[in-house]
Formats: sequence, C-alpha cells, structure tokens
Amino acid sequence: MILIKNAKILTPKGIVEGNLKVEGGKISEIGGKAEKSDVIIDGSRKAVIPGFFNTHTHAAMTLFRSYADDMQLHEWLEKKIWPLEAKLDEKAVYWGTKLACVEMLKSGTVFFNDMYFFPEAIARAAEECGIRACVSAAFFDFFNPDLLELNLKNAVKSLREIEKYDVLRAIGPHAVYTVSLDGLRRAAEIAEEMDIFMHFHLAETEKEVLDFKKQHGKLIVPALDEIGFLSKRLIAAHSVWLEDAEIEILAKKGVSVAHCPASNMKLCVGKAIRYEAMKRAGVNFTLATDGAASNNNLDMLEEMKFAALLQKFHHSNPTLLKAEEVFEAATLNGAKAFGIKSGVIKEGYEADIVLVDLAKPYMQPEHSLIANLVYAASSGCVDTVIVKGEVVVEDGVFRSEEEELKIIEKANEVAKRLTGSA
Amino acid sequence: MILIKNAKILTPKGIVEGNLKVEGGKISEIGGKAEKSDVIIDGSRKAVIPGFFNTHTHAAMTLFRSYADDMQLHEWLEKKIWPLEAKLDEKAVYWGTKLACVEMLKSGTVFFNDMYFFPEAIARAAEECGIRACVSAAFFDFFNPDLLELNLKNAVKSLREIEKYDVLRAIGPHAVYTVSLDGLRRAAEIAEEMDIFMHFHLAETEKEVLDFKKQHGKLIVPALDEIGFLSKRLIAAHSVWLEDAEIEILAKKGVSVAHCPASNMKLCVGKAIRYEAMKRAGVNFTLATDGAASNNNLDMLEEMKFAALLQKFHHSNPTLLKAEEVFEAATLNGAKAFGIKSGVIKEGYEADIVLVDLAKPYMQPEHSLIANLVYAASSGCVDTVIVKGEVVVEDGVFRSEEEELKIIEKANEVAKRLTGSA
Repeated sequence: MILIKNAKILTPKGIVEGNLKVEGGKISEIGGKAEKSDVIIDGSRKAVIPGFFNTHTHAAMTLFRSYADDMQLHEWLEKKIWPLEAKLDEKAVYWGTKLACVEMLKSGTVFFNDMYFFPEAIARAAEECGIRACVSAAFFDFFNPDLLELNLKNAVKSLREIEKYDVLRAIGPHAVYTVSLDGLRRAAEIAEEMDIFMHFHLAETEKEVLDFKKQHGKLIVPALDEIGFLSKRLIAAHSVWLEDAEIEILAKKGVSVAHCPASNMKLCVGKAIRYEAMKRAGVNFTLATDGAASNNNLDMLEEMKFAALLQKFHHSNPTLLKAEEVFEAATLNGAKAFGIKSGVIKEGYEADIVLVDLAKPYMQPEHSLIANLVYAASSGCVDTVIVKGEVVVEDGVFRSEEEELKIIEKANEVAKRLTGSA
Repeated sequence: MILIKNAKILTPKGIVEGNLKVEGGKISEIGGKAEKSDVIIDGSRKAVIPGFFNTHTHAAMTLFRSYADDMQLHEWLEKKIWPLEAKLDEKAVYWGTKLACVEMLKSGTVFFNDMYFFPEAIARAAEECGIRACVSAAFFDFFNPDLLELNLKNAVKSLREIEKYDVLRAIGPHAVYTVSLDGLRRAAEIAEEMDIFMHFHLAETEKEVLDFKKQHGKLIVPALDEIGFLSKRLIAAHSVWLEDAEIEILAKKGVSVAHCPASNMKLCVGKAIRYEAMKRAGVNFTLATDGAASNNNLDMLEEMKFAALLQKFHHSNPTLLKAEEVFEAATLNGAKAFGIKSGVIKEGYEADIVLVDLAKPYMQPEHSLIANLVYAASSGCVDTVIVKGEVVVEDGVFRSEEEELKIIEKANEVAKRLTGSA
C-alpha cells in the first residue's frame, strides 16, 4: 500500500485536501484517515494530479534531438534524418527509447503511444522503465503489392514478438501517402483479428489532402470509412486539414485524434487543428508531443500551453481550448483512447499519479491549480510519479541518479555513433 | 573571486571546455588553470551560458497568475484585472515583484525591464533580490492636459525617489491610445534630460493602428518620429502591427523591440511580429515574457521556443528565427538595449552567468547546446545563477529555502487579500 499524506488532491469534483491511498495498483481511498503503510509520501505543499497520456511519439528520436533544426522539410529529411535512420539498429532504438521514457516519466507522463523501428526494443525499454505504452508495428507499402505482403508479414511477426511484454499493441500503417488503401484495409482487419489498436498519421499537411483528392476524387476520411478503417481502435495523429463532414465521421466512428501543436508549428503545417469543430462533433481529442526531432522534447506540461495558445491565436478567440479542456485532453481523453480506466484521481481508477511541487514560484499563488499546470508550470515541478501503483520517480529522480546517468551515457554513445562524431 | 571548474562554456566562438574566473563582478578569464578561490563551483556536467534579459514585464502581476484565463479581452480587463489593480498598494507590488524576481532568477533571467504601479516598491524588491532591473515610472494622460501635468509630475517624483536604488530607470508613457502625442513628446524630453530609458507599448493590436491612423491620418511610427520620440533610449514592447517603412525608421533610430510571443498568442493579437523584416532592417530585436496575467509565467527558456515556433508557423517558413538568433535576442540583444556589457560569455564582460545542468534527459544528447536550450530545455535545468558577480541561485535554490518560502507565503497572503479570498 502507498499512503500519500496531507496533499491537495485534484479530483473531478475539485480539490480535496487530505490523504490518498493506493492498493493493488488502484486508487483505493481519497480523504481517509492516515494509517500505517509500506510507503508513505509526504504530500504537504504538493498537489496530486493524474499522470499525462502522450498519444503520439517516436520515442527513440530523442537520439536526434537538436541535431538538425530550422531547416526546410525536404532538406531536413533527406540530408539529416533519413541518413541517420538508415543506420539505426535495435540497440540504438532501445537506448533512445529509454532516454525518452526517463524524460517522459520525469515530466509526469505515465503513458506513450509509440511508432518507430524495432518494436521489440521499444516494448522492452518501456517495460523496464515502468511506464505504460502502446507499441506499434509500423509499416509502409509505397503502393507496391509485393512490399505490402512482405511488410505486413513482418508487422504481424513483430506484434507476436512483443506480446510477452507488458504493453498495449497497435498496428501502424504510416499514412495515406505511404500506404495503399488496400494496405490500410488489411491493417484494420489485422487489428480486429488481434484485438489491438491502430496508429496512423492523418491529414498533417494540405499537400497530403490535395494529392489524395486528386488521385481518388474524394476526401481522405470518407475513403477510409468506406474500407472499414475507422473505429475506436484508431488513434489518428495530427488530423489538422479536415473538413466538417470528416470530423463528424471521426466522431461517429469513435476515432481518437492525437493533436501535436509544437510539431505542427515547427514543421509549418499551415493551420491549427480545428478544436471547436471537433468538440462540437464529440471527437475524443487527445494531446501528444510527436518525436524529439520535430518538437524537441516530450514534455506534456509544455505541450498543453502550446495547444491552448495555438488555438486562441490561430482562430482569434481567447476563449478557445480552455485550461480545463486541454488538461482533460492530456489526461483522461488519452486514457480513454486506449481503454484504460485512468486519467483522473478517483477511487477505483488506476494509480497513475503525479505529485507536483507547489512551492515553485511559478505555481504560486494558487488561484487555479489547473491553469497553473497548463499555463505556468514546467517539468521541474514534477516531484513523484506513480505508474500502475509503483513509484517510478521520487524527489524528481528516476529510480536512482546512477541509473539516470547510465541511460544518458548510453544514449549519448549511440547518438554519437549514428552521427559519426564518436 | 569565483572559480567555475571544468564546465562547458558557451562563448561567441563556440564551446570551450575548462574553467571560468569571475573577479570584480566581471568575467576575468576563460580556460585558465584552476586556482584557489573564495567560491569554487563544480562545473562538470554543466554548461555556462549568459543569463537572460527579459525586456518587457509587469512583474507584480504574478499576483494575478492564473486568476482569470480563457476570457475575452474586455471582460477579462473589466471584470477581473482592473478591479484587482484598483486594490493594489505598495506592499502588494513589493511582494508580487519579489515572487517574480525569484521566479526569473531561478529560470536563468538576470535582468528585467518593468512597468507597473509603485516604482519604488519594484526597485526595492529587485535590489533586495540581487537581480538587474530597469524600473519605469509609468504614466497615462488619457488626452487630458491637466492629467498630463499631474501624472508627469508624479512620474518625475517617482524617478527621483528610485535614484538611490541599484537599478536603471525609464519613463513609461503607456501607449498611443492612453497618452497624447504631447505627453509622448514631453516623456522623450524628460528621458533626455534625466539620461534614462523609455518603456512603451507599440502597435500591439490592429485596432490600435487603425484608430491612430483614423485620428491622425498617418502611421504611428512616423508620427512618433516627428515629435522626437524615437531613439536608443526607447524599448518598444510588442511592435506587431508595423509596416516596412516603420520598421526601417525604428532601425535607423536605434529603437529596441521587445517581442512577447506567448502574450501575443494568448491575447490573440492576430499576427506574429515581422522578424524577417526587422532582421533585414537591422532592428535590435529582444525577447520578453510580458506580465504573468497574460503569459502566465516569466520563463525565458519557454519564451524562446514560443518565439521560434510562432515565427515558423505564422510565416510558413521553418528556417525563420533560428535557434542561434532567438538565443541572441534573449541574451545579448537585451543587454545591448540597456547599454550593459553583458549577454555573452567573454572576458571583460559583466559576470551575469547561468550554469545549466546537462544531466537532465531533455538536455541530451549534446548535438547542439543552443538548440537544446531553445527547443528542449525547461527551467528545471537552471542550477546556478550569478548576477554582477554574485551567486544568487545555487543548486536551483534562491539564497535559502526559508527565504523562498517566505516570499511565496507573503505573495500568497497579498493575492488572497486582493481577490477577497483571504
């Protein structure tokens, strides 16, 4: 049992001051009397909040963090990112993902939905770090039927391999400009058969939408709907360039959207996601950082501020995407997307809990805890992180300083090897 | 003497690994041998960078942080901010400013340019906290000649009062929609006579520009030029809605611009500052957070990322406002605006120095220190802050935890009194 004593607990009904008990990986009591416990955490001057769900990442791209910025997209991909990715191996992805897991946990993230090479290395890294994850077997077919057969076979093989790890699984057909409609249809069938999720890039740029329309004579979402691709299993990253009718279809089919504001801004996708239309339609709106090559961090506290300010600025409406809404997107909605009973501090829910230090100057005064978290906080306020009832970060340190430093050193070694600077 | 040992030192010529000496408040040697010293700081796994210059703040508005967000501007001002400001007194501004100073120092800021009520309280708070500041005597005349005489007299009185503090001074005519052209001309004369700076809000919204043009039949900047308002003494906050000809005049006259991207986004000013045009013209482009009611923090590390991403996104060009450029805006250009020989790590320059912890996961790998600072860092990496050769923050703590907590408590008391929740 874990007992958190004398904290300010952010519940759906407001802030409760008192104790919180965790038993069997679940939140068992809020506000009860203090008792004896195996683990006692002093919650004074701290707030208990739900952990963050980062619904779209390429975690191992931490290896490329700040390696190449401020460039035109094609030059960046062709001259910088792709040549490095060609040199990736399992070991590199393993250490890059571990670095990402430590960064995420230390900034209050309890779950990430990842798509990258070497899924087995990702699953192993996540399990070892004690963070929740959904790991995709990504695939492309580049509109070549032979490549589709080969890559689908490999994807299914990967999915079987990672079944032994304590992670959720997804099949990851990359996007409509890299996977044929036949490939997407087959991916949906596999997801159904294996009872797993789907992870996909949707309508990130205007070019993607225009090219698709030119080729198929219709919008992307209706075309995906026709082939049975849309369901609650699907997490659609970006989803920027969508029309009203498409947003309504996504809502009806229960698709979750993973909004990546910092990445959208850095890569100049041209407009901001249409939050108000999504809210009206009832889309499950979630938040994500994307990979560290296009962001360059995995900090959901920062991402919440980017999301809220980008909506207000781009749509010229300061009341859009309020603090409470963006906080829900970053927590509860992410948990919902993956069918996890988490994302709020409530009895019977999973103990995915973050304690934030209220004695940071930027967390004061305490007019609104949620607005402070969304608009003022930075990751330095994350004191303790509990995932599935296990303490993973304590006093701001992941397990031990030695373990943190080892992961940093290994990731650095790998990064230097890839860039040829070792 | 202070000796920083074995650090990665960010100099204008690149990173030097070694020691750094501070003597008589100045950087006296980079890369020399280790010696005996009164103060020795272990720089291993740390980087030495110049401290940040925050060139436009209303520091005491920390009291209103997260008190009212996500609202329409007029409702926000009339129902929330103005009623609280009407209750402000010297004590409130003093503790609000102290909270701001601690927040700024702990996130690596060594200087702030402030405009708010009770300048004496601001100057005292800044001096006591050991942070550099320029304190304005703000004034309005609302186009009433009698009010102009009264308020100018009060402003000059305030400026005399704060002469005894170790701060720079500015006269702060608020904006063209609150101060007459006659008031602005008089302010410029006073600045000249007293040899002080000027702090002003310029072209923040389209409405301001259109209203001015309607009333005066010309653009704001040429009108200001005609009355002799423009000079190196002037720091013009926001400066969003400017035409090419206006930007060229600002450059020619040596005016410094204080760009506030997060505030511009939150308050929906409609477009992003025209950085490329300002760069081409040679404007001294600096960075600022604005006050904590419209931001909601005073974190220059975060502000750099907002600045760079907003430029790229709004102007659809990923190469705009590169990491090196925004870092220079946040450091050297801010120092230049106030004639301080600071903002770079160079022998003979003022010892306004920040040590950042490179062992944070988000600061790894070390492909580019500047890109990591701009795009990945958060304030939690700030380990040590030295201002004018004095250590003000050590191991992430301002002076002592007791002093930090006392400031937080006092600011909270005052905030509760103002909002009526005490």
